[in-house]
Amino acid sequence: MAVLLSTLATEIVIPVAAVIGIVFSLVQWFIVSRVKVTPERHAPPAGPNSNKNGFNDYLIEEEEGLHDQNVVAKCAEIQNAISEGATSFLFTEYQYVGVFMVVFAILIFLFLGSVEGFSTKSQPCTYDAQRTCKPALATAIFSTVAFVLGGVTSILSGFLGMKIATYANARTTLEARKGVGKAFIVAFRSGAVMGFLLAANGLLVLYITINVFKVYYGDDWEGLFESITGYGLGGSAMALFGRVGGGIYTKAADVGADLVGKVERNIPEDDPRNPAVIADNVGDNVGDIAGMGSDLFGSYAESSCAALVVASISSFGINHEFTSMLYPLLISSMGILICLITTLFATDFFEIKAVKEIEPALKKQLIISTVLMTVGIAIISWIALPSSFTIYNFGVQKVVKNWQLFLCVAVGLWAGLIIGFVTEYYTSNAYSPVQDVADSCRTGAATNVIFGLALGYKSVIIPIFAIAVSIFVSFSFAAMYGIAVAALGMLSTIATGLAIDAYGPISDNAGGIAEMAGMSHRIRERTDALDAAGNTTAAIGKGFAIGSAALVSLALFGAFVSRAAISTVDVLTPKVFIGLIVGAMLPYWFSAMTMKSVGSAALKMVEEVRRQFNTIPGLMEGTAKPDYATCVKISTDASIKEMIPPGALVILTPLIVGTLFGVETLSGVLAGSLVSGVQVAISASNTGGAWDNAKKYIEAGASEHARTLGPKGSDPHKAAVIGDTIGDPLKDTSGPSLNILIKLMAVESLVFAPFFATHGGLLFKIF
Amino acid sequence: MAVLLSTLATEIVIPVAAVIGIVFSLVQWFIVSRVKVTPERHAPPAGPNSNKNGFNDYLIEEEEGLHDQNVVAKCAEIQNAISEGATSFLFTEYQYVGVFMVVFAILIFLFLGSVEGFSTKSQPCTYDAQRTCKPALATAIFSTVAFVLGGVTSILSGFLGMKIATYANARTTLEARKGVGKAFIVAFRSGAVMGFLLAANGLLVLYITINVFKVYYGDDWEGLFESITGYGLGGSAMALFGRVGGGIYTKAADVGADLVGKVERNIPEDDPRNPAVIADNVGDNVGDIAGMGSDLFGSYAESSCAALVVASISSFGINHEFTSMLYPLLISSMGILICLITTLFATDFFEIKAVKEIEPALKKQLIISTVLMTVGIAIISWIALPSSFTIYNFGVQKVVKNWQLFLCVAVGLWAGLIIGFVTEYYTSNAYSPVQDVADSCRTGAATNVIFGLALGYKSVIIPIFAIAVSIFVSFSFAAMYGIAVAALGMLSTIATGLAIDAYGPISDNAGGIAEMAGMSHRIRERTDALDAAGNTTAAIGKGFAIGSAALVSLALFGAFVSRAAISTVDVLTPKVFIGLIVGAMLPYWFSAMTMKSVGSAALKMVEEVRRQFNTIPGLMEGTAKPDYATCVKISTDASIKEMIPPGALVILTPLIVGTLFGVETLSGVLAGSLVSGVQVAISASNTGGAWDNAKKYIEAGASEHARTLGPKGSDPHKAAVIGDTIGDPLKDTSGPSLNILIKLMAVESLVFAPFFATHGGLLFKIF
Repeated sequence: MAVLLSTLATEIVIPVAAVIGIVFSLVQWFIVSRVKVTPERHAPPAGPNSNKNGFNDYLIEEEEGLHDQNVVAKCAEIQNAISEGATSFLFTEYQYVGVFMVVFAILIFLFLGSVEGFSTKSQPCTYDAQRTCKPALATAIFSTVAFVLGGVTSILSGFLGMKIATYANARTTLEARKGVGKAFIVAFRSGAVMGFLLAANGLLVLYITINVFKVYYGDDWEGLFESITGYGLGGSAMALFGRVGGGIYTKAADVGADLVGKVERNIPEDDPRNPAVIADNVGDNVGDIAGMGSDLFGSYAESSCAALVVASISSFGINHEFTSMLYPLLISSMGILICLITTLFATDFFEIKAVKEIEPALKKQLIISTVLMTVGIAIISWIALPSSFTIYNFGVQKVVKNWQLFLCVAVGLWAGLIIGFVTEYYTSNAYSPVQDVADSCRTGAATNVIFGLALGYKSVIIPIFAIAVSIFVSFSFAAMYGIAVAALGMLSTIATGLAIDAYGPISDNAGGIAEMAGMSHRIRERTDALDAAGNTTAAIGKGFAIGSAALVSLALFGAFVSRAAISTVDVLTPKVFIGLIVGAMLPYWFSAMTMKSVGSAALKMVEEVRRQFNTIPGLMEGTAKPDYATCVKISTDASIKEMIPPGALVILTPLIVGTLFGVETLSGVLAGSLVSGVQVAISASNTGGAWDNAKKYIEAGASEHARTLGPKGSDPHKAAVIGDTIGDPLKDTSGPSLNILIKLMAVESLVFAPFFATHGGLLFKIF
Repeated sequence: MAVLLSTLATEIVIPVAAVIGIVFSLVQWFIVSRVKVTPERHAPPAGPNSNKNGFNDYLIEEEEGLHDQNVVAKCAEIQNAISEGATSFLFTEYQYVGVFMVVFAILIFLFLGSVEGFSTKSQPCTYDAQRTCKPALATAIFSTVAFVLGGVTSILSGFLGMKIATYANARTTLEARKGVGKAFIVAFRSGAVMGFLLAANGLLVLYITINVFKVYYGDDWEGLFESITGYGLGGSAMALFGRVGGGIYTKAADVGADLVGKVERNIPEDDPRNPAVIADNVGDNVGDIAGMGSDLFGSYAESSCAALVVASISSFGINHEFTSMLYPLLISSMGILICLITTLFATDFFEIKAVKEIEPALKKQLIISTVLMTVGIAIISWIALPSSFTIYNFGVQKVVKNWQLFLCVAVGLWAGLIIGFVTEYYTSNAYSPVQDVADSCRTGAATNVIFGLALGYKSVIIPIFAIAVSIFVSFSFAAMYGIAVAALGMLSTIATGLAIDAYGPISDNAGGIAEMAGMSHRIRERTDALDAAGNTTAAIGKGFAIGSAALVSLALFGAFVSRAAISTVDVLTPKVFIGLIVGAMLPYWFSAMTMKSVGSAALKMVEEVRRQFNTIPGLMEGTAKPDYATCVKISTDASIKEMIPPGALVILTPLIVGTLFGVETLSGVLAGSLVSGVQVAISASNTGGAWDNAKKYIEAGASEHARTLGPKGSDPHKAAVIGDTIGDPLKDTSGPSLNILIKLMAVESLVFAPFFATHGGLLFKIF
């Protein structure tokens, strides 16, 4: 049955949408770049309306210090230092990651090539023995190529994100002189640059790869999409190092800077006298921006691959229906267009005028994109799908209607929104949970920690129900394909999600630059307001990331099970059950490693900062400059060194379990780590977010209740600072890294499934 | 094939072993009671060798204050206050629990009776339709009776434990005047009273119940042992309230007392001026003693029931081989005798002479009992089992050899020992993990908490592997029966385990009494040394409790699945998977409730203690007495009120899920909560234990390193106190309560399985 959208139209629509995304992103960059950070050599005659620094001003009465060229020069200098630190860290990281990629690419080639003993002869297909498919050796080669492509795209995503963020931070600071609305728009536009570039880039590379591989594979779609899964593996493997390395970097610097600066020396955050302050700001860019970018790119690539690999053995693939086959990519294309419209609501249709409008504006982005995208999904489902088709469901073909698939995608999309709002409820200081945590600071740090941990545990409940409902609906309608497209639904608004998410660290950096450049407190207050909203949106972004990771890894798990030719994963067999319980333990092992890493790296940072305060005369008085570079180096070295053990745990587990214990035990491990890791990740992120905002609640003193707890330096505030510091590694290192743990183990198992199915379970074979 | 041990011999051996246990326990009590706490009216002529207070003295040179009758009177008074507080709390708790029991008993009767519409006619058996079994109505009645019996036995276990502990605490204090060895023996003997009474009592009641029920059931062993499972449910339901209520009580008092006393007022622990001090000491008895007693009794009852119910549908039951059928009870009987011998090693064969000998002596108890018990299991397996038999394995009969079953029990026993030693390694301050945590206090409370959390996560790894290996071995050899007897193996040395465990809180109380009675610091130092060893052994006890809970609940889960007539629990079905992920969430929900409860109750306590310090003139100076009773009342009321929501969560979940979503989803929930709960419980217990001992490490200052962190009141010490306070609810409320969560949901599902199998899954039936 023909679908409305022809193959030719599909071939045009997808790259066009991707190019539109890239162009839109470049336009935003151009607009941001109009804010100049190079001091003008010949200062113009002073006057409040001279407007040399950008657009027209609507909020002229707020302007201040617009023509102080020293400030501009100072900002430029700090921006350079941050950018250099971030670039140098990422390059060091990529050197190590590069070695890993080469080794792992060889491993993929050898493992997959060995399935048929490196034979170059075509073989009967796995799912349809009547037909002939390309040899396993081809899959080995193309999977390896796809892996490298995925890895390079992920690196590019993270690197570009970092470049944009370090380009935007000082510009946001400078715009803050004109008012909070101006600063908001610069920060948000810069976030959008990253969001659109990443979404469009990921889509385009995947699309081109499929088309290039198709030249060789021809009608063997089974082999084609099996090797495409390497793209997801590459993306996620890089994301692992990005998240873990970046997470350790940023929190070692942050915790180290705070422990000496705020607690011992009693100097404000981001004070230029603190030697770790540049490292701290670099951390925001390599952790929250580059790490988050790689993470979400990985989720996007993996859910697309999971959907494609299942589709290739369903009626779409069997009947070679190209448009329906590329349904996942069409959803993403539509997502780019919808997010483009959504962005205009924040940057052009309305303008922020006051601090209290920031958070609603960001929330509106989520709601608008979700509502519009629901319509978008309906359109794509209508034009790109036949009214009825079959989906591979563990050995049998299940009949699915197009409206059912629409519901699968939509339930994922809306579950994402619910998770976002629940996260906001538990981490924003506008609601009672965070206020209760702040209140518990009255009796000291211990009760603060007890209440914060309890909050994190409690915040798991509704997101898990939302995920469970999405799983039930999409699983019941369209088996594992349903789960994969539900994940894609949640990620379809990724451009907007990333824009909101990147906005946070950019504002945080902007505040740091304002402080370091010695700008007036009014500027700092404006960037602080941006940053407070950014904290909550960062938590929302993490909620999305973990929710989509759960769905993605379940979809990958399903694809793995199909590929490994297991028809049931029965908990009531010892092989599966021990996998389940050990898998459920892995998030703890992994978190233990990452938290300890942050702790150890922070201790090194503390020693260095203390050393500088003690040995550099005039540092506390501000007459001497600290040695920022040593602190940057400590964070870089520590994070590179410390990211290896947790990385090895994640990467080696599926290989060892699959090879020694076989696919049943590996299935158990994947299911166990998924259901346990989701809980640990959500509770860790939200506990950390709540502590951070409880502290900010006390500092801001915006209500009667908040003022009874403050001001800065009071005992409750000190207790809140302790909570905030504990939360740092939880919310920015351990928690988000767990997304990668559950996704990466699943996609790795999927890629190596042919090998495990053939040669796996050595231990049981021997005994 | 006949077994060596005849039916008649079995009928004699089990009750005799139980009676020996009870007699031994009474003998120990008699010995303890020879320490007099009533002041003598006519003081004897003073003289160092008059020996009116007990045995001969080997360590006379250490004696002091032996004849100060004021001290004795003071101790008696404090002991009375603690005993009264504990009794009053337990009676209040039992009133609520009594109401619950009546309601739940009616529910059991109605649900199970409705399976065959309250018909009084005999029916074809579930597993063998050829034969006729008693009607479901009979199962309903007998299950209800067994439930009540289990509940009453559990209450009795907890209550007796508490009585013994409050009887022993002051006696330990008084003996400490003679030396650390004497005090150790009194505390340990008292622990043994509780351990043996509980083990023997549980065995005897179960044995009698089986024999009485058999009068009605005759040859219908399937029905007989199905209704016996009510015994496990009753035991565990009471344990839930004991653990949660007692846990909230003890930590509300402890945290409340510490926050004001140690942190704000800077007075020592257990200072009589602190109004919450009596409540704190009461808490040790109702939480750590009564709660732990009920918990382990529940595990014991449940693993026996799980083994019996599976055996009844295996060849033992089908062929009516009574001796082999009662193999689980024979193991427990042997356990009592082995533990009796083991105890003599601590109390009679050797004597503790120095502080550093305490911990090795306790560890020796574990090793000796495990080694001897291995032989004991071999003997029982040899004389009570045919060389080959069949075990029911989800629909098929699996052939098992007697040596294989021996290995199942032994692997459980040794896994328990490994878990115990790993727990010790992570929580004792003799090893580097706790020392590292202590060291991290240098940089403040935040790093202490980060390192402590990481330690807890890490401590999960080896116990999970130990549990996984036990499961794999016992599951592979003898399916769910293997798991059940592995759990029994772990619990076979329960008398020794409980003796060691109860020893801790008794010593803790003894220290409190010494402080309150104003005895010299030398006495306090001795009791502190006992208590420090007790902290580690308490952590070991919790390790055993959670390890056995994991095995028990898996065995119950298997029995449930068999009874509900499901042959596979396939993760790859939406019904099961959503159960799995929601089940994995439940431990977080439950922990959120219990931690928040402790926090709220502690805040109330803090307010009351502050109020008393502020309003009672002369309290700080020690000239006025605080109002202890109000604090006791606050703890009692808060814990009773706060135990209801978490209790309801645990008890209602299986009923709601089973009734609305059916047995597949319920299976998922059970598996999910098991694999996730174990991790949360182990990490919570060990994190808390490590913080407690890190603080003690700094306080004791026994090494060069420890002295650089101290003394009491230094900044690192303050940071350590914060960690200790956070750990309190983790290690004594949330963590241990999770054992009950996973066990109780499983046993409840098993008892209600006939109902769910017939009427469950309403939601899916409607739609």
